[in-house]
Amino acid sequence: MEILFKNVTAVTMQKERPVLYGADVGVKDGRITFGAAAADRVIDGTGKVLIPGMYNCHAHSPMSLLRGFANDLALEPWLTDHIWPTEAKIKEMPGAVRTGALLAIAEMISSGTVSFNDMYFYLPVIAQAVEESGMKANLSNGIFAFNPDGYDYRKTSEYAETSEIVSTFHKSAHGRIKAEASIHCAYTSHPAAWEQVRDFAKEHQLTIHVHLSETIAEHNNSVNQFGMTPAEAFAKHGVFDVPSLAAHACWATEDDIEILARHAVSVAHNPVSNLKLASGIAPIVAMQKAGINIALGTDGMASNNSHDLFEEIKIASILQKCAVEDPTAVPAFDVLEMATVNGAKAQGRQGGQITEGADADLVLLDFDNPRQVPCYDPLLSLAYNTTGRDVLMTLCQGKVLYENGEFKTVDVERVLHEARAIGEKV
Amino acid sequence: MEILFKNVTAVTMQKERPVLYGADVGVKDGRITFGAAAADRVIDGTGKVLIPGMYNCHAHSPMSLLRGFANDLALEPWLTDHIWPTEAKIKEMPGAVRTGALLAIAEMISSGTVSFNDMYFYLPVIAQAVEESGMKANLSNGIFAFNPDGYDYRKTSEYAETSEIVSTFHKSAHGRIKAEASIHCAYTSHPAAWEQVRDFAKEHQLTIHVHLSETIAEHNNSVNQFGMTPAEAFAKHGVFDVPSLAAHACWATEDDIEILARHAVSVAHNPVSNLKLASGIAPIVAMQKAGINIALGTDGMASNNSHDLFEEIKIASILQKCAVEDPTAVPAFDVLEMATVNGAKAQGRQGGQITEGADADLVLLDFDNPRQVPCYDPLLSLAYNTTGRDVLMTLCQGKVLYENGEFKTVDVERVLHEARAIGEKV
Repeated sequence: MEILFKNVTAVTMQKERPVLYGADVGVKDGRITFGAAAADRVIDGTGKVLIPGMYNCHAHSPMSLLRGFANDLALEPWLTDHIWPTEAKIKEMPGAVRTGALLAIAEMISSGTVSFNDMYFYLPVIAQAVEESGMKANLSNGIFAFNPDGYDYRKTSEYAETSEIVSTFHKSAHGRIKAEASIHCAYTSHPAAWEQVRDFAKEHQLTIHVHLSETIAEHNNSVNQFGMTPAEAFAKHGVFDVPSLAAHACWATEDDIEILARHAVSVAHNPVSNLKLASGIAPIVAMQKAGINIALGTDGMASNNSHDLFEEIKIASILQKCAVEDPTAVPAFDVLEMATVNGAKAQGRQGGQITEGADADLVLLDFDNPRQVPCYDPLLSLAYNTTGRDVLMTLCQGKVLYENGEFKTVDVERVLHEARAIGEKV
Repeated sequence: MEILFKNVTAVTMQKERPVLYGADVGVKDGRITFGAAAADRVIDGTGKVLIPGMYNCHAHSPMSLLRGFANDLALEPWLTDHIWPTEAKIKEMPGAVRTGALLAIAEMISSGTVSFNDMYFYLPVIAQAVEESGMKANLSNGIFAFNPDGYDYRKTSEYAETSEIVSTFHKSAHGRIKAEASIHCAYTSHPAAWEQVRDFAKEHQLTIHVHLSETIAEHNNSVNQFGMTPAEAFAKHGVFDVPSLAAHACWATEDDIEILARHAVSVAHNPVSNLKLASGIAPIVAMQKAGINIALGTDGMASNNSHDLFEEIKIASILQKCAVEDPTAVPAFDVLEMATVNGAKAQGRQGGQITEGADADLVLLDFDNPRQVPCYDPLLSLAYNTTGRDVLMTLCQGKVLYENGEFKTVDVERVLHEARAIGEKV
């Protein structure tokens, strides 16, 4: 056994028995095993809580370079005058995407996230960063296809990058890296293109990642253009015949919710980004009732500006309580499930629980500090008063990626130096 | 000079020049002085940001003992079956209020707060804890007075405790501790009692701290009982003739806002608590337009569950953006002002800015980490991606209270030990 967490409070995220007190949780050959045994390293779990590594199901990791860039602006000038021109500059800078991805990765692993869904460009560069970091990720490059005339997905850079991931990285790195097909959004492409992406996904058994009804303008645009909501349009053109992940869904109608549920589409809920951009409050409670698999995401750093998934956990729960005027809505277990079990499911992975034989994706938290004492129920403490600040250690597949401020796989000093230099140029 | 912060980014919170780059900020005789000079201790400010210490303007500090206790419940059973009976138990435990106050204080100073408004019982015990900790606080014990017959404020425990603070602590500890008069809420007392509290406040030149229109039920109760909203009722009975601080005001009407503005009543906005208890979203943007002095609070830990004011800062801003459908609403400077300058004003103090000669209430933040690099605008970074995790050092009146995980004035190990023991008993 490589590591033994001895006498720890283990939050298994199993419905029947979500919390084990005084548990001995071991790591053997990168997998979880219960019970004490001889170990290379024994970690005293007293005053500590062990949780499954978390899933950030909607990110644009290199946008960490644009964290806090031109905020507090209206959506239109923000995107057109600031974000898009600056992203174009970043595209021209060699190494910037790698630096941005590693910066995001460092932030994520130091706050308890072990896996993320990324939608960006230069996927092979991002895949390389993920591979080195020891994290897991589903990587996609969402198509933009404004003109339907003669559109051929196989001639696009989105296809070239995605298929490179399929052939070189997909299911590589011990299954850590997966390619995803992706349509950026209904309003930035057309049905003929969607069908080509869908066929490509089917051919390679990929999941599909889309933006869906993030803003009312985008939602209504689809209704005007296609006579259908984005969910209706995607469903009609067979996109949701493939296992799919829809980010946002703030403006999903009752019919949309029924469609998403029927096609088993997962939703990535991004409450911080949705509030900050004034996009809207997603109907999460209605989606829960419909049985939709809801995961959490941070979105890109230009609109958040934190990769700490504990923020999304707390805000997802308390925002819904207020939105539906019911303090019992989205209780602690539900919202923690979104960040773990549901996230793994949305990524088409096994994970998000502490169970015998599962990948040892584990986060050790300090519960012996003024933010955590006394603790009446670890689930409540995790949902409402834990942040990345409490993370002591993050493991993925049994490998320690982060411990007590130290990054084991990312040269964080170099990444900070490079990110600062890029920040000075944009 | 005791301490010199050399070459630091100083966020002064002065409107004309909110950020000074490469500043030399000194501490001399407990006060701020600009410019380099010989100092007992020189701290390299490179990659660090210095901000004014923050103000938490609505707290019930000993409730830190009930953090995460019976959450995710409806308001009525939560208060009646859980919180109130447990608070009664706490009242019976010697030392529990002291432990709870110190626990809250430790959490506050380690996340950048230097001053708070506390509304609780056993004020002299809390005052003693504040005095030892080196923080600032306005302390109040809000009256409950259900029966108007023969009510005499001077015969209540609320009066006894408050006047003890007035005579022993008020303006003691270098002006750090102040007594406040307090009416718990319109629905838990009656106008004859309010007038007595008001007169006492006038006599001793105290500010008044009240709960106001936190829930729609409480708001409507006042309308039914008095034919007036709580704001109208308090104004009519002269409560607001005294400088006042109203917590919550979620359901303040347009007329209420006009009344609060006309009487220069400060509002303590508690967005996390308001969301978590499903109380409602306060009309902050309308209050800003009316010129009301808006400060921030965490409320008690049974309904938050964090004393990290940076959470309130971020959520106050992004929640309003969504509520008024405008991403430019409550921009970074405004929300930081709420946590600093406005908080000081609400407490009837000078403070919340880095200015020559002001009390050296300062917080040093690490901006050289993956959560903060690159930094385009320190104001945006502070509002949207800073948490207590970035606090390196907290000073009040020039005295270091906290530094790099170490508490200089609170025996935190002992407090944690005692808090854990109390948690096991309740």
